Amino acid sequence: MSSELRSLKLLLTGNPPLGRASEGDRAPVPAHRMMDNEVFSNFLLYSTVLVIKMYLLAVITGQVRLRKKAFANPEDALKHGGLQYCRTDPDVERCRRAHWNDLENILPFLFLGSIYSFLDPDPFIAWLHFFIFFVGRIIHTIAYLVKLRAPIRSVAYTIAQFPCVSMALQILWEVIDTW
Amino acid sequence: MSSELRSLKLLLTGNPPLGRASEGDRAPVPAHRMMDNEVFSNFLLYSTVLVIKMYLLAVITGQVRLRKKAFANPEDALKHGGLQYCRTDPDVERCRRAHWNDLENILPFLFLGSIYSFLDPDPFIAWLHFFIFFVGRIIHTIAYLVKLRAPIRSVAYTIAQFPCVSMALQILWEVIDTW
Amino acid sequence: MSSELRSLKLLLTGNPPLGRASEGDRAPVPAHRMMDNEVFSNFLLYSTVLVIKMYLLAVITGQVRLRKKAFANPEDALKHGGLQYCRTDPDVERCRRAHWNDLENILPFLFLGSIYSFLDPDPFIAWLHFFIFFVGRIIHTIAYLVKLRAPIRSVAYTIAQFPCVSMALQILWEVIDTW
Repeated sequence: MSSELRSLKLLLTGNPPLGRASEGDRAPVPAHRMMDNEVFSNFLLYSTVLVIKMYLLAVITGQVRLRKKAFANPEDALKHGGLQYCRTDPDVERCRRAHWNDLENILPFLFLGSIYSFLDPDPFIAWLHFFIFFVGRIIHTIAYLVKLRAPIRSVAYTIAQFPCVSMALQILWEVIDTW
Repeated sequence: MSSELRSLKLLLTGNPPLGRASEGDRAPVPAHRMMDNEVFSNFLLYSTVLVIKMYLLAVITGQVRLRKKAFANPEDALKHGGLQYCRTDPDVERCRRAHWNDLENILPFLFLGSIYSFLDPDPFIAWLHFFIFFVGRIIHTIAYLVKLRAPIRSVAYTIAQFPCVSMALQILWEVIDTW
Repeated sequence: MSSELRSLKLLLTGNPPLGRASEGDRAPVPAHRMMDNEVFSNFLLYSTVLVIKMYLLAVITGQVRLRKKAFANPEDALKHGGLQYCRTDPDVERCRRAHWNDLENILPFLFLGSIYSFLDPDPFIAWLHFFIFFVGRIIHTIAYLVKLRAPIRSVAYTIAQFPCVSMALQILWEVIDTW
């Protein structure tokens, strides 16, 4: 059994595979365990900021709806001047596409990153995964909202996908390695 | 190191930071640990019911499509009377917007709530976070489906966001507190 | 307290409820713990492949956009021949609906499956849950993309929902069982 796998098992079971029998081989690696935590803390930092970014995007969408007077629901339009404002608007649709793309990418990252953090990755390599994804997604949102010329948005999207695919493959590798 | 942080570390590593050395200071707090579990159980109750609510929304959308004869795909329309029924319908779109809004809000809640549950929050305060979100989202869905007058839906949405932002900030605070 | 619940508590707290007092009754079940891990490994296999499938769907959507010359953003259309290509296309919309449906179903599965894996389910029953969902979602995507006749897609969707609802109810059952 690889040490990475044992580390995952330990996390999942909350105790070593053979009761306390393996305590002896665990005692010398407390710093190593702390490193694991450092990776997850790091992940939590970037992922939580990205969730807040998604919330901000929802606020921005609402503001654009009010400013452009373009509401999705008749009841909202009625409250803001009349049914004629129940309509679509290119800027509102743009915000919604940015948000949609976040759902497609940031939500799976929350899952993959959580699992990957406990595969005992090298802390720097792990940080690089999270950081590249984070920067890629921030640039993606900015490129969408301020209409940066193509292909800036697509490139940011693609770059942010690399760490995701890398984490997914490493998770699969760990799973297959168990058999 | 704060006790909240130690609690998170303990969860993440599955063993105390210094092997069994810190067992002494952990032994007296079993009830405290159980409280942690109580918070997560509580979170699981509300989050799972909200996931079931999302599934119900999908069923409702399907029923409205059948009743209004408004299908998104030609192959579905063909099966239910002809290609002329491959069309949009305001009530179907309303269901889809309600569902979209759930994806934007309930899915990040599943992540934030899971992490927050292990930051050793006060059980009552934690329950309040989950309960406010839960009630806000239930009212949001009802307001959407039965077309309650504005701004009931928006107010429910906004109120449900408060515990989410609060949990996100507390997670960030814990992470930053580690450095 | 049921053994399933104790197993969940153990996971959540990282130590048994009464300090090391209950170590005695845990020592004889290491193989049982490994089974728990096996369930989660199994879950990780299917869920990660489904996440990769979602990523592939995004790539396919992009390819269809390029081939059909149908872009969502003016800046993309400009780069590929002119603003007239900022338009919708039935095949692109089809890809997006398939992706939307994945978000609605695969993302909640990531949550429910993670929790369910630690409720100490029978490994075969658990595998059956994951496998049915996996096959259902793969058929759903294929049926969407190659336009299989109705109701193949709807049947695949419905079959994939069964294990999800089953897992949700089992989670609720465990939570309610605690009180």
